[in-house]
Amino acid sequence: MVIVLKENTTEEQKDQLVNWFQGQGLKVHESKGEYTTILGLVGDVASIDKDMVGMLDIVEKVTPISEPYKNANRKFHPMDTVINVGGAKIGGGDFAVIAGPCSVGSEEHIMETAEKIKEAGASFLRGGAFKPRTSPYSFQGMKEEGLKLLSEAKKATGLPVVSELISIEYLDAFDDVDVIQVGARNMQNFEMLTELGHSGKTVLLTRGLANTIEDLLMSAEYILAGGNTNIILCESGIRTFEQTTRNTVDLSSIPVLHSKTHLPVIVDPSFSMGRSELVAPIALAAVAAGADGLMIEVNNDPRHALSDSAESLDPEEFKALMDRIGKVREAIR
Amino acid sequence: MVIVLKENTTEEQKDQLVNWFQGQGLKVHESKGEYTTILGLVGDVASIDKDMVGMLDIVEKVTPISEPYKNANRKFHPMDTVINVGGAKIGGGDFAVIAGPCSVGSEEHIMETAEKIKEAGASFLRGGAFKPRTSPYSFQGMKEEGLKLLSEAKKATGLPVVSELISIEYLDAFDDVDVIQVGARNMQNFEMLTELGHSGKTVLLTRGLANTIEDLLMSAEYILAGGNTNIILCESGIRTFEQTTRNTVDLSSIPVLHSKTHLPVIVDPSFSMGRSELVAPIALAAVAAGADGLMIEVNNDPRHALSDSAESLDPEEFKALMDRIGKVREAIR
Amino acid sequence: MVIVLKENTTEEQKDQLVNWFQGQGLKVHESKGEYTTILGLVGDVASIDKDMVGMLDIVEKVTPISEPYKNANRKFHPMDTVINVGGAKIGGGDFAVIAGPCSVGSEEHIMETAEKIKEAGASFLRGGAFKPRTSPYSFQGMKEEGLKLLSEAKKATGLPVVSELISIEYLDAFDDVDVIQVGARNMQNFEMLTELGHSGKTVLLTRGLANTIEDLLMSAEYILAGGNTNIILCESGIRTFEQTTRNTVDLSSIPVLHSKTHLPVIVDPSFSMGRSELVAPIALAAVAAGADGLMIEVNNDPRHALSDSAESLDPEEFKALMDRIGKVREAIR
Amino acid sequence: MVIVLKENTTEEQKDQLVNWFQGQGLKVHESKGEYTTILGLVGDVASIDKDMVGMLDIVEKVTPISEPYKNANRKFHPMDTVINVGGAKIGGGDFAVIAGPCSVGSEEHIMETAEKIKEAGASFLRGGAFKPRTSPYSFQGMKEEGLKLLSEAKKATGLPVVSELISIEYLDAFDDVDVIQVGARNMQNFEMLTELGHSGKTVLLTRGLANTIEDLLMSAEYILAGGNTNIILCESGIRTFEQTTRNTVDLSSIPVLHSKTHLPVIVDPSFSMGRSELVAPIALAAVAAGADGLMIEVNNDPRHALSDSAESLDPEEFKALMDRIGKVREAIR
Repeated sequence: MVIVLKENTTEEQKDQLVNWFQGQGLKVHESKGEYTTILGLVGDVASIDKDMVGMLDIVEKVTPISEPYKNANRKFHPMDTVINVGGAKIGGGDFAVIAGPCSVGSEEHIMETAEKIKEAGASFLRGGAFKPRTSPYSFQGMKEEGLKLLSEAKKATGLPVVSELISIEYLDAFDDVDVIQVGARNMQNFEMLTELGHSGKTVLLTRGLANTIEDLLMSAEYILAGGNTNIILCESGIRTFEQTTRNTVDLSSIPVLHSKTHLPVIVDPSFSMGRSELVAPIALAAVAAGADGLMIEVNNDPRHALSDSAESLDPEEFKALMDRIGKVREAIR
Repeated sequence: MVIVLKENTTEEQKDQLVNWFQGQGLKVHESKGEYTTILGLVGDVASIDKDMVGMLDIVEKVTPISEPYKNANRKFHPMDTVINVGGAKIGGGDFAVIAGPCSVGSEEHIMETAEKIKEAGASFLRGGAFKPRTSPYSFQGMKEEGLKLLSEAKKATGLPVVSELISIEYLDAFDDVDVIQVGARNMQNFEMLTELGHSGKTVLLTRGLANTIEDLLMSAEYILAGGNTNIILCESGIRTFEQTTRNTVDLSSIPVLHSKTHLPVIVDPSFSMGRSELVAPIALAAVAAGADGLMIEVNNDPRHALSDSAESLDPEEFKALMDRIGKVREAIR
Repeated sequence: MVIVLKENTTEEQKDQLVNWFQGQGLKVHESKGEYTTILGLVGDVASIDKDMVGMLDIVEKVTPISEPYKNANRKFHPMDTVINVGGAKIGGGDFAVIAGPCSVGSEEHIMETAEKIKEAGASFLRGGAFKPRTSPYSFQGMKEEGLKLLSEAKKATGLPVVSELISIEYLDAFDDVDVIQVGARNMQNFEMLTELGHSGKTVLLTRGLANTIEDLLMSAEYILAGGNTNIILCESGIRTFEQTTRNTVDLSSIPVLHSKTHLPVIVDPSFSMGRSELVAPIALAAVAAGADGLMIEVNNDPRHALSDSAESLDPEEFKALMDRIGKVREAIR
Repeated sequence: MVIVLKENTTEEQKDQLVNWFQGQGLKVHESKGEYTTILGLVGDVASIDKDMVGMLDIVEKVTPISEPYKNANRKFHPMDTVINVGGAKIGGGDFAVIAGPCSVGSEEHIMETAEKIKEAGASFLRGGAFKPRTSPYSFQGMKEEGLKLLSEAKKATGLPVVSELISIEYLDAFDDVDVIQVGARNMQNFEMLTELGHSGKTVLLTRGLANTIEDLLMSAEYILAGGNTNIILCESGIRTFEQTTRNTVDLSSIPVLHSKTHLPVIVDPSFSMGRSELVAPIALAAVAAGADGLMIEVNNDPRHALSDSAESLDPEEFKALMDRIGKVREAIR
């Protein structure tokens, strides 16, 4: 950590701060320029609160040198984490596709979709039961009922299931859910992250719309700090000025995350794009950039055309995409 | 709501959609151009899910004409909402200042600060007990103990108190808190908003860092939909590319919100700026732009210099600012 | 174009506006709701200035229905534009790589680099001669001297050359440059675009850092309006909150642009990422997403280690990447 | 400047870099941690290209400690710059209002507007003659003819005039223009800035839509480096996700700029907001935050209702606003 002091800092103020750092077991290097004094802290700075130091009256700027995340850091944990859910693996060279509808509709609907995606090669079934909606007047999902239907589809197909948790109070209802998705809006719901850290659940942690890669890793750190290392990171787009897509998917986050952390990284082209015709090019691009998996919206419900969103692929389109994904994976081997 | 259909939409597809809208009790106006057909929906479109319609295969674009919020909308509720907490009023011409430390420290600390801010003219005492922190290794606040100290300061001074709720499971502990702050990261925690809507608590709803004014009003709508109209909106900055301030405070949100909603609007110059020397100019600017109140960080704890953040004013600075605020309020009358 | 009138608009004001639109040869459809009146304009609205209409006192909102660009619009020009510079083709199924150093250094340097990239399969040589720099104290490029060295490398290798124009007053010096790059900061330098529209030059138009896809197409429209159809669009990243990469490359712009325009689209992974280790994954991802070409920084100058930026590949790395690009192109065929 | 080296940097590579810095006359402090080595550079680092150093293979991160701008820096030039154009002063306690139409219309129009704004207390007349437009099909201004009308209004009223330059090639036509505005899109048109630095003209430099305060000061540095110190900085909004205003005006830039530079700062509430009803609250807020002046759109052309934009005030509204501005200035004295 490098600390730049303000020009008018007195010797006494500076010494007081240096002493405090030394009291925390740190070595302090001092560089004195014409206008500024710089303190370099060497040692375990994890105990130092960067924000608190930055707000001191005498401090102009604080620059962290080492990353603020430890358990998520590849420097200290060089081996890839491999997530294994009943044999379906993600990370460390293993690639998996999570597929299914945005929202669970009916029993027939989820059963058929589950069978079709399994046939096409998906490893996990996803389905939303609790839906976070910006309007209180919109449909909020089938809730517990939806989770039950997911369980039945799991029994029938053997596919592990993924579903989003929108409030920690519903955790008990997720007993039979294999992977709990933390959505973009809850990425910094630190209470939820803390509790998931103490659970044994695999967590699919979605990057927030205005969050950086470091923010995402700090949120993973919350879960890891509780002892839970079963985390899959998910890039599903960030908010930019662009209007033609729902969000802008940041595919460079894949190689950047791979360099900074041992956790696997998947991409959600369906949610990030919001339009089905963009799902295939972005899915293939994510694979070419090295993603460990994909989450793709697939729907098979011709009788409910109105709730069938245009960001979903139908099972035939999904099957065709799986073939192309296989070819790109082969090409980059 | 105006819906633009894709060029290759068949008559049959279009009729199916038009029938569906008519089945919802809406009138549909159709305009046919050379390349596109436009449907104009007239009637109560609140039941129509804009996102769902936008994702239909045949739809190119959906433009809502009426605002998606109803209870928060000034069109339907032209009178200013006035919040009255034990005589301290915000809104409808009444102006109030909420002041106090970012985090509650010790009993002595909060007592002294409370007395000083009351003397200077503040109407509410704020103090953080549960602190949302990006790092799991940072101090997370005094929690229930902090709330108890706030209660004592309330008893001693008579000032109503404001404190942030970071998870709905702690709501019971906030019994003696008069105004519950929903922080920027929880602005779209819809489960929390729903429960606060069913509580009788006054809510201070903070705009999220990457959220628009419409997003903020949709979140207020969640609380209002539950029957709770005691809401104060708080502009505390949005994320931009600027690096010299913690966030960029959007003061135009004050007159924009006043035109769109009847709810009162306050500004938090301390959090948004992150530097004490910027608090006064932004506080005065907010008053000049018509804010109904301010939330200002004030701290009085010389013995804890290191935890005393530089975005805080000391009681003397606060008193001087209150005098200047009074003059600007006079000037814009 | 759909126009929403303000609630308090009088009949007389509305009629005046409707008459004015009719005088412009447009048909006007009127929909009257309880709170708002909506006007739908049908016909050739290109002559209507959306911004001007939006600023009228009685207008609440203007929503354009048809795109504001005509010559760039695939609707009216469904066939892919293919750029052909002395046999090197981009677009319509033809794929090309532009490679070379960020800045032209010395004769030896550019000659060697040119030969190496040609060997590896590049079709165009790039090299910066005039460099736009944020600091007036930074090296601004070799200028005319650099362009001469590029010409010599072109003579020696037969590769057409690409270089950036930073002010229209230097256009004469670019006589022997085959493709003129308009950099991100000049994307909305409308005077430059207008003059390039009247030149016979092929233009490589770079998306600005805070610009949308529609903004980019409107800038292309300036060049097309002058009669010049030789335009290649270049995605080289947009500004976001992310700090680990120079910019965030928006690879969804490739399929989106392909759906909206007939102009070819290339991606610049070197500039957008700013780090050499990210060039290969993003280059491969761009190919998988359907890009018509790539612009890649390659440098071969061991004696100038300090000016040799880390976002450059060396010729060996470039050759290896070209092989992988070929494989991914094969895979997505 | 603080440089963090990558973990795998060899001693030899490090020594080579340290030697190079020492060769530039700098002292280098070295701090060695377990995982990283940090170099602190002390001395005149203006000659060091931060970007170039940051891209070296062995460098993980570069943090500038001193600001990259020198002539614009208040540290080296503590006294306020006061702009004096024929007696009309901006800066150092002097406050001035620039008013007039967005575009010059007709002789009668500009004459009447000029007289009205003078009467109301404006010190400068503004009027656009060359208009940068996103569409090539939109009206591009009266050009030279517009500048002539401005000159006549100047002769008649004695008000110095302000107009925007959109390409350096038109500079000669601006002979009789007193203050040349560089618009947001040209803030980083470095060629234009360089030439203005060599002219004797007062420059009104507008902050770009996606630019930081440091970017703005680096652009001012270009003009200052040429010897021209007559610069007024203009905050006219930055691009954010908010849609209810044209841009988001960053009023904290006023006190931040005052702390970092000696140059005066004005605010343009009309352009940034795009709606007349927001001009007054933002103008008053800017004054309360300490602005040295304002630029306000005023229009007096009832016969051209359609070209009369709703962000303009009419002369009566402007006069009323000037009175309120006077009161707020009094209040913050």
